[in-house]
Amino acid sequence: MAAPDCLERARLLVEPALEAAVDRLCADLRLPAGYHFGWDEHNGSPAGVGAGKGLRPTLALLSAEAVGAPAEVGVPGAVAVELVHNFSLVHDDIIDGDTERRHRATVWSAFGVDDAVISGDALHTLAFQVLLDDPTPERVVATTRLVDATAAMIAGQAADMAFDDRLDVDLAACLAMEADKTGALLGYAASVGAVLAGADTTRVNALEAFGQEMGLAFQAVDDVLGIWGDPTVTGKAAGNDLRERKKSLPVALVLDAGDSAADELRAVYAGDGDLSDADVIRVAALIEEAGGRDRTVVEARQHLDTALDTLGGVDLVETVVVELAGLACFVVERDF
Amino acid sequence: MAAPDCLERARLLVEPALEAAVDRLCADLRLPAGYHFGWDEHNGSPAGVGAGKGLRPTLALLSAEAVGAPAEVGVPGAVAVELVHNFSLVHDDIIDGDTERRHRATVWSAFGVDDAVISGDALHTLAFQVLLDDPTPERVVATTRLVDATAAMIAGQAADMAFDDRLDVDLAACLAMEADKTGALLGYAASVGAVLAGADTTRVNALEAFGQEMGLAFQAVDDVLGIWGDPTVTGKAAGNDLRERKKSLPVALVLDAGDSAADELRAVYAGDGDLSDADVIRVAALIEEAGGRDRTVVEARQHLDTALDTLGGVDLVETVVVELAGLACFVVERDF
Repeated sequence: MAAPDCLERARLLVEPALEAAVDRLCADLRLPAGYHFGWDEHNGSPAGVGAGKGLRPTLALLSAEAVGAPAEVGVPGAVAVELVHNFSLVHDDIIDGDTERRHRATVWSAFGVDDAVISGDALHTLAFQVLLDDPTPERVVATTRLVDATAAMIAGQAADMAFDDRLDVDLAACLAMEADKTGALLGYAASVGAVLAGADTTRVNALEAFGQEMGLAFQAVDDVLGIWGDPTVTGKAAGNDLRERKKSLPVALVLDAGDSAADELRAVYAGDGDLSDADVIRVAALIEEAGGRDRTVVEARQHLDTALDTLGGVDLVETVVVELAGLACFVVERDF
Repeated sequence: MAAPDCLERARLLVEPALEAAVDRLCADLRLPAGYHFGWDEHNGSPAGVGAGKGLRPTLALLSAEAVGAPAEVGVPGAVAVELVHNFSLVHDDIIDGDTERRHRATVWSAFGVDDAVISGDALHTLAFQVLLDDPTPERVVATTRLVDATAAMIAGQAADMAFDDRLDVDLAACLAMEADKTGALLGYAASVGAVLAGADTTRVNALEAFGQEMGLAFQAVDDVLGIWGDPTVTGKAAGNDLRERKKSLPVALVLDAGDSAADELRAVYAGDGDLSDADVIRVAALIEEAGGRDRTVVEARQHLDTALDTLGGVDLVETVVVELAGLACFVVERDF
């Protein structure tokens, strides 16, 4: 099955369970949560604009099938990882001050910071509740791993925030941050189905490593889109990451080189507050000229290669390995 | 052992484990967390002003002893429940706009909203991590119960927030909100030691019911202090709850009566934004005259009686039952 079909099949399998989980929230929490997932309008009427692409749930289902189990075995893990991912989006949008996501106002911007804090908290707890409703040994392992992945994700977000006040972020620090912020949860997603199917550690670890590397590739692409992405496609303002002085991969790669372009970039970034539109355009050009964009794309492709390599020589269902590889290529090659 | 000694002993037993858990956070998260717990100053130097009174950890240890286990058996539960409680304080202070807690600036007010959001998230995940580090059957049950109690606590906080926009909050709605917001986690604290000791359902349920009722009594006292408490004792601004138009128990009791005092209260509360100092004084007097203060104290004592009743006729260690009862009386009778 090609990647778009894998994503669509996962959406059909997982969304009813995800919606049933979110329906457990009280009305005051259900409304902002349902709005965030694209099911409802701000006033509670049906919106149906659709959630994100559902990469994590898709990985969760494929990871069950990769060890010979039916896709359905991965559903509780798919729901749980999607809840954690979306709790983090709701809170990260507050932290980053982002007013738009998926072409709509973010939860804090539509409902206020208070409702965004509490509804994010509710999704955070709900993720663990979904898994522990039926605490089989496999689900307990899946919960423990999710707790660890969530802790890593939060640490990564904290490091990303701390970078805003630092001008000495090098490539290693940036990659370590992105491994936590994005890699950990994608590694979880790409292995939770196998965990729920009771697969052995070798196969679980290989799938997790695949997801982690895919996460680094995915984040590198996201970093390119965060600077040069088309707002009509990304659903976010152009140059967002630069405006907020983020030390994403293209920036870290230029800073790391320590040449005159690094000095110039450092000088603009040394100020306070958001960058002006003119500075954003200037800095984007500077990074591109210094090779930050091209080298980030190379970085993405290298992590993609490593991801695909991890699936070789492991006893996994061959057709599913092809689907996993296709999915990884699809999300990494998007929009270039 | 008298209540202050129980609290002090629990602090000595639990604080090292709590600090070891918080030390697992990366430096960017450890600083605001350590500040919140009163261990560190804003700049990271030792503060040692001390955390809260540690009611929940104390209950956790006593609940292990109540079923004949050593207090130490309750420590992981004590740490986990204290982490959840404190994650909620950090986030609730953002939501309520409270600038002071325990005579110090709140985390959001000292570090900014962004750091308060992410460090609260970190404490939230850490609570489950502490329990699942060693996923014995008892700890898995303790985790599942904590997830459920946390979900209830968040729903209660959401209801409390929704009350701000409502003028029709009656006694039943207010008590249901407080049972979720405060009762659920105190019920958990008062039973988790017994869960970790592998006690039977009858004893666990009795201890949980004790904690839930104690929570309602405790919250009623808190509601009185939230209006008439001495700021030098409470560590919060005087009349805080009224200023924020909260529908706490004294307010709900007056609104519920539906008489002329209710109409007058409703009229003041019907406006927008924070109440003025003059309005706060006027409304406090109005509620007191209408009997809202006295009836809240009566409500607190009734829940305290119910709490003590739940411990009768259950097979628990008698000396510990006396300590639990003493602790409940101590926290409910404080500051009247």
